[in-house]
Amino acid sequence: MIAVDWGTSSLRAYRLSSEGAVLEQRNTDAGVLASQGHFEAVLAKIVHGWPEATVWMAGMIGSRSGWQEVPYVACPAGFAAVAAGMRQVAAPALPGRRVFIVPGVSDAVASQHPEVMRGEETQVLGLADQLGTEGRHVICLPGTHSKWVTWSDGGIVSLRTAMTGELYALLRRHSLLAALMPAVGEDVDDADAFARGVTDSQRGGVLGNHLFAVRTHGLFGTLAPAVAPSYLSGLLIGHELQGLLPAHRPSVHLIGDAALVQRYRRALALLDVAAATHAPDLCARGLFLLSAQAALAAQAAHAAHAA
Amino acid sequence: MIAVDWGTSSLRAYRLSSEGAVLEQRNTDAGVLASQGHFEAVLAKIVHGWPEATVWMAGMIGSRSGWQEVPYVACPAGFAAVAAGMRQVAAPALPGRRVFIVPGVSDAVASQHPEVMRGEETQVLGLADQLGTEGRHVICLPGTHSKWVTWSDGGIVSLRTAMTGELYALLRRHSLLAALMPAVGEDVDDADAFARGVTDSQRGGVLGNHLFAVRTHGLFGTLAPAVAPSYLSGLLIGHELQGLLPAHRPSVHLIGDAALVQRYRRALALLDVAAATHAPDLCARGLFLLSAQAALAAQAAHAAHAA
Repeated sequence: MIAVDWGTSSLRAYRLSSEGAVLEQRNTDAGVLASQGHFEAVLAKIVHGWPEATVWMAGMIGSRSGWQEVPYVACPAGFAAVAAGMRQVAAPALPGRRVFIVPGVSDAVASQHPEVMRGEETQVLGLADQLGTEGRHVICLPGTHSKWVTWSDGGIVSLRTAMTGELYALLRRHSLLAALMPAVGEDVDDADAFARGVTDSQRGGVLGNHLFAVRTHGLFGTLAPAVAPSYLSGLLIGHELQGLLPAHRPSVHLIGDAALVQRYRRALALLDVAAATHAPDLCARGLFLLSAQAALAAQAAHAAHAA
Repeated sequence: MIAVDWGTSSLRAYRLSSEGAVLEQRNTDAGVLASQGHFEAVLAKIVHGWPEATVWMAGMIGSRSGWQEVPYVACPAGFAAVAAGMRQVAAPALPGRRVFIVPGVSDAVASQHPEVMRGEETQVLGLADQLGTEGRHVICLPGTHSKWVTWSDGGIVSLRTAMTGELYALLRRHSLLAALMPAVGEDVDDADAFARGVTDSQRGGVLGNHLFAVRTHGLFGTLAPAVAPSYLSGLLIGHELQGLLPAHRPSVHLIGDAALVQRYRRALALLDVAAATHAPDLCARGLFLLSAQAALAAQAAHAAHAA
């Protein structure tokens, strides 16, 4: 089969063996935004020459602005529930292939706003299979909108979001604080300034106040412009941890790009929280397991029908 | 005398009587940013035809990026301390006039980052004179960077900032949330959505998580796009209050533009906190009192010298 992780701004395709091993990988920046109106052609191009007939896709491709909207599956959601929510999409431009999109997961948090994710659930499923589906795991997927997922009793039981990556980008590029920093792209990742930001974020108080420290530390010469972006990143990630790290401070599984998960690992270490890191291609594993789950369900339905 | 409130993006000049009454007012958008390199010419133009020789100015005009940097005066800072920190600037293009810039105020907060303001201190002085300088007053000046000031024992004793207005502008214009909202300028100020945002902000948790509610409430049809900006504003102001409203919930004096202070007043009412509102031209009153204070100090120095 072919596994596809199709997000807002990127597309990753994996050719898998019948045991789920990655045989080949292709990445493009033809994300859902850039592919509007020609999803089929983009998919046909990226899987060109791969013989596998079955394509499973996860991510924003199943959102309202994607190829076809696939309704969210509500928590608690394990392999069976997510697999049952998948939808086949018509793809006449890909003759001989069958194309499926898996649903995202939602959490109707009673005490506040509902939470959703698309794509991350597939990485979580891949990781839960590695860690043991019967255990309890706290999983953080840092990014534009970081996701915090708790896995328990064989499924995803809770989900929370922090818009950390987006706030960083907005403040780094468009804010009055940006004028105090080097040009974007000339950042250094300064571990000390980052740690200082994390530490300062834990002193109580709100983000809107803490952010002003970037200005006043700059003004009084107590923060060099070159390391101000690292300090800002520390403040923002520290606030995310303060809000979303469970109160009993469990060890955390981080899934994401290497540089970003290392930042989160450093921030967690400052709070004396252990973390393990995992690469985002867990998505391929998750999609492989979902397709196997769907095949099992189809067999069971067939057997019930035959009986 | 002439009082000038010269901020980053606006310039307000007041012609005052010898008793401090406003005789005439002129406003332009020739703020410090737009006036870089020709401050003297901009000032000469706005005071043209006014006979008063003495010009007192407050605001970012005294910052590093202004006409001349005037060092901050540290808390506690009352009339005497702020007046003593004023500096005369050379203004040969304004023959016959004497031009002074008052300092901003800083608070070296031991537990966190230092805090600063420029311009707001003058409004606070004007208000404290009205309210009674011997009382204790909590004063909030909402804006791009909202300031919370405590006045006690005849001076400003503490200062805190929240970057609420700037966060709103960034999120309203440049974020992924902005795509879910009407075009900027087509906002309605919806009191219910604003109140809902304030209420949701008080449920515990961090801003980076709460902001995601704008997206998911939109996704599930529980927040109309037209009122999403009001909800966002409520969330942000609610977080500011959570962080900076003193724990004993004193009544608050709000100084600022009418529409904005009304929003803050509504948010405070939701928290059962009383508020009084005041117009920003308190700056003229503050500058008048500072010039009187400086004249007194000069007389005292002269008398001491003569003795």
